[in-house]
Amino acid sequence: MTRKVEVAIIGAGTAGLNAMGQVRRRTDNFVLINGGELGTTCARVGCMPSKVAIQVADDFHRRHIFEREGIEGGDGLGLDISEAFEHVRDLRDILVDRVLARTTDNLGDEFIDGYARCAAPGVIEVNGERIEADAIIVAAGSRPVVPAAWQALGDRVVTTDTLFEQERWPRSLAVIGLGAVGLEMGQALHRMGVQVTGFDALDTIAGLTDPAVRNTAVELLGKEFPLLLGQPAEVVEQGDQLRVSAGDHSVLVDQVLASMGRRSNLDRLELHNLGLDLDDHGMPAVDPSTMQVDSQRVFIAGDITGERQILHEAGNEGRIAGYNATCAEATAFARTTPMAVTFSDPNICQVGAAFDELEPGDIVVGEMRFGPLGRALVMGRNRGILRVYVNRADARLLGACMVAPKGENLAHLIAWCLEQGLTVTRMLSMPFYHPTIEEALQGALRDAVGKLEDDLDLPDHPLDIRPL
Amino acid sequence: MTRKVEVAIIGAGTAGLNAMGQVRRRTDNFVLINGGELGTTCARVGCMPSKVAIQVADDFHRRHIFEREGIEGGDGLGLDISEAFEHVRDLRDILVDRVLARTTDNLGDEFIDGYARCAAPGVIEVNGERIEADAIIVAAGSRPVVPAAWQALGDRVVTTDTLFEQERWPRSLAVIGLGAVGLEMGQALHRMGVQVTGFDALDTIAGLTDPAVRNTAVELLGKEFPLLLGQPAEVVEQGDQLRVSAGDHSVLVDQVLASMGRRSNLDRLELHNLGLDLDDHGMPAVDPSTMQVDSQRVFIAGDITGERQILHEAGNEGRIAGYNATCAEATAFARTTPMAVTFSDPNICQVGAAFDELEPGDIVVGEMRFGPLGRALVMGRNRGILRVYVNRADARLLGACMVAPKGENLAHLIAWCLEQGLTVTRMLSMPFYHPTIEEALQGALRDAVGKLEDDLDLPDHPLDIRPL
Repeated sequence: MTRKVEVAIIGAGTAGLNAMGQVRRRTDNFVLINGGELGTTCARVGCMPSKVAIQVADDFHRRHIFEREGIEGGDGLGLDISEAFEHVRDLRDILVDRVLARTTDNLGDEFIDGYARCAAPGVIEVNGERIEADAIIVAAGSRPVVPAAWQALGDRVVTTDTLFEQERWPRSLAVIGLGAVGLEMGQALHRMGVQVTGFDALDTIAGLTDPAVRNTAVELLGKEFPLLLGQPAEVVEQGDQLRVSAGDHSVLVDQVLASMGRRSNLDRLELHNLGLDLDDHGMPAVDPSTMQVDSQRVFIAGDITGERQILHEAGNEGRIAGYNATCAEATAFARTTPMAVTFSDPNICQVGAAFDELEPGDIVVGEMRFGPLGRALVMGRNRGILRVYVNRADARLLGACMVAPKGENLAHLIAWCLEQGLTVTRMLSMPFYHPTIEEALQGALRDAVGKLEDDLDLPDHPLDIRPL
Repeated sequence: MTRKVEVAIIGAGTAGLNAMGQVRRRTDNFVLINGGELGTTCARVGCMPSKVAIQVADDFHRRHIFEREGIEGGDGLGLDISEAFEHVRDLRDILVDRVLARTTDNLGDEFIDGYARCAAPGVIEVNGERIEADAIIVAAGSRPVVPAAWQALGDRVVTTDTLFEQERWPRSLAVIGLGAVGLEMGQALHRMGVQVTGFDALDTIAGLTDPAVRNTAVELLGKEFPLLLGQPAEVVEQGDQLRVSAGDHSVLVDQVLASMGRRSNLDRLELHNLGLDLDDHGMPAVDPSTMQVDSQRVFIAGDITGERQILHEAGNEGRIAGYNATCAEATAFARTTPMAVTFSDPNICQVGAAFDELEPGDIVVGEMRFGPLGRALVMGRNRGILRVYVNRADARLLGACMVAPKGENLAHLIAWCLEQGLTVTRMLSMPFYHPTIEEALQGALRDAVGKLEDDLDLPDHPLDIRPL
C-alpha cells in the first residue's frame, strides 16, 4: 500500500509542528509522523518542567533573606520534594495539553503514530506503510546522551526523560554535565534539599568561554554545591549506591543525573536511503538559511541537526523548512542573533558573538558587576557580572556574556540591539529607567566607551543624550 | 560681598548633580547650592526606599503560593513592619551615602548649604551672600502636594518625606492619590499587614488612559485592597483617627498617606527677579531640548519643571542644562521615548504614545493577556494584559501600555524599539527566547499583525523569519 503526499513531516515536536503550520497553509495533502510520546521535548521534559522546578526552588531558597527583611518564621519552612514535583507535573501537563490541543488533536489521518524510516529517495515507511512524498521534512528530534556503560545502572541513572516522573527522590545526586540542564536541575535539586555534586569534563560551565564570567559563575554556583571541573567523571556501582569519580575527587551518591547534552535522532532514520551525501556522523549538509539538504526536496529542522537546540530556533527552523517545502524555490532566511540562557540563579546568558569567537585585539570589553547596582542590592540579588564585547573599529556591539540577576531579560534587550547592529553610543542614549536591572547594561556600556576613547572620536557632550 | 562664578547650580538633587558633572568638565568656577537635606529625592525618599519596601512586601506575599509548590510552613510566617522598615532605611542609607560620596563629599567651597533666592538678572543670594553667575541652572526639585487643610492633622498625614522614617506604624491607612507612589506604597503596606484603602479623584489609577489596561489594573490591585475612584477624598478628624470620605464611601483610619503628586519648588525661588517672562503659575517657558529659558543664560532642569518627574529624565535634563550652560550656543538634544513604570505587582507601565494621545482610527491595538502565558503561569504571576498601539499606515509601533509581570523589563524592550521606529513585523523577527515573559510581547505583536492584514501587504512567509 502506497500513499502519495506533497509533504511528509517526520516528528511532531516543536520543529515538526511549526513546519506543519506552514505546510497546511498551502496543502491538505501532507502527513505528520511521530514515534513515541507527543507533546514536544520542551513542554514534556525540557524547558517547562525545569522552569517550574526552578521557580519552586527559588521561592524556597528565598527564605534565607527573610530575617534581614523583617519576615519571621523562615526557619520553619520545609519543602516536600514529592509535592514539589507533583506541582511540576501538574503545570507541565497543562502546558503539554495545550500543545496537543493546538496541534495534533485536530488532525485526522494526516497524523501517523509510528517511527518512520527512510526507504528510498522520496520514500519513507512507517508501520509498514509506504509513503511517497514530494518533499520530506525531517524533524525527529534528539535524546539525552547516556554512555552505554551507564545503562546497566538502571534507574540510578536518570535523564530529563525520567527525572520529572520520579516518585522517590534521592538524598544525594551527582549531576554529570554542567550545561544548561545540569546547572538548572543541579541548583534546583540542591535548593530542594538534595545533596548535589556537579561534574563536568570541561573546565567551565554552561559553555562559558569568557574567563571573567566563567570565574564568577563557577564561584557563585560553586558556593551552593560543589562543582568538580576539568576531569571526565566515571561512575561505578558501590552497593546500592554509585561512586562518581573525577581525578582525585570521588563521591558516593544515590543517583546520577546524566546531563551531557542531547544527541540527534538522525541515526534512527536510515537517512542514507534517501540518496543524500552524508558525513561520517551520518549527517547531510544542511543550509541553515533554507534548512534544505543540497538541492534535494529534503529539509532537516530542529534538535535533530545537532545545532541550536533551543525552542525558538527549532520553531524557526520548522517554519523555514515548512515554508520552503511547499515552494518551488527555497527562500533563504536570516537566522536570529544567537542566544543561550541558563535559567540558574543568577542566570547565565550568552548573546551574539562569544568571547572565544572574537580577536582580543579587535574588541574592548565593557564590564559591570552587580554588587553595587542599586536595584540588584534592593532585590538581594546583587551578584554577578555583565561583559559586553564592542568592536574597536566602529563601536558596534558584537556580543555579551553574563551571570546576572534577570539575565534572561537583559539578554533580550542586548540581542535586539545586536539584530540592528547598534553602536554602544547609540545604546547609551536609550532610556534606562531607574532603579532597574537594565542599569547594569548602562554601566557596562559606559565602561566600554571609557576604554574606546583612544579609538573613537567621541562627541563632547555626554552620551546619555543625543543631539536632535 | 559678591562672588562671581561661571555657573551657579541651585539644587544638589539628581538634575543638579548631573548638571554639575557637565559643568566641572569645563570650569572649576561654579557653585552648587542646596537647601535642606542632601542625597536626592530618589535615593532618600523616592525610588530607592519604596523599592526596598516593595521587595519585602513581595517576598512576604509570596507565601500564598507556597502550599501549591510543596513548601510547608508558609502559614507560620509573620512580618515585623518596624524591622522591615529598618531594613528599608539601612539599604536607603547605603544608597544615599553612595550619592554623597560620588558628589558633594568631594566639593570644597563650591558647595553652599542654604536656600537660594533669585535677586536680579544673573544674580542670586544665599545665606546673605550675593552670587553673580554667567549662567544659572535651576534644579531645586519638588515637594509632595499636601492640601493646606490637612496640615493641621499633624503626623496623622504622612508623605514620602516622612513615611519611611516612622517608628510607629498605623493599623489602618488611607492612600489618597493612586499614581505610582500611592499604588506602590499602598500595595506594599497592605501586604505588610496594614489595612489600606485607596482613593483617587480620577476614575483611573497610575494615569492609565487605556480602558482595557485600566480595567485589568483596577481589578487586580482592587482584589488586594479597596480602590475608591472618581470622587475627591475629604479628610476630617474623628477622635484620634481620621475619617476619609469620597462620595458615598467613608472609612476611619489611623493615618493618611498623601500621594497626590509632587509640586515644583519654583515658587520658593523668586524667579521673577531674574527678569524672565513667567506664566500664571510663575513658570517660564523652558525648551525641553535645551532646558533653556528663552535665550537667557538660565536653565531649568529636573522635577522643578513639573514635567517628567522621573530619575532618568531628571538626569538627562541636568546633563543637557549643564552642557549648554557652559557652551556659547545651546545644543538641542533629543528626549528619550516616554516611559512610566509603577512598580506594583504586576507592574503598570506606559511606553511611548499613550492611548488617549492616539486617534483610534489610525491604529490597531495588539493585545496579549498573561493568563495563558507559559512562563507567567510557571512563575505563578500569570495576571495582566499587554496592549501595543500600532500605526495602521506603516505598521510602526507607536506605544504600549500594560499591567504585567516583569513589566519593567518589557517596557525597556518596547521603548528601545520605539526609539528606532521599528515596525511590528521587524519586531516579530527578533529572537524570543522560551519560556520568557518577552513571549507576551510576541503574542501582542502577532495579534496586531492579524488586525493589520487588511491594511498591509504582508509577505507570504511567517513573520517570525526574515528573508536574507
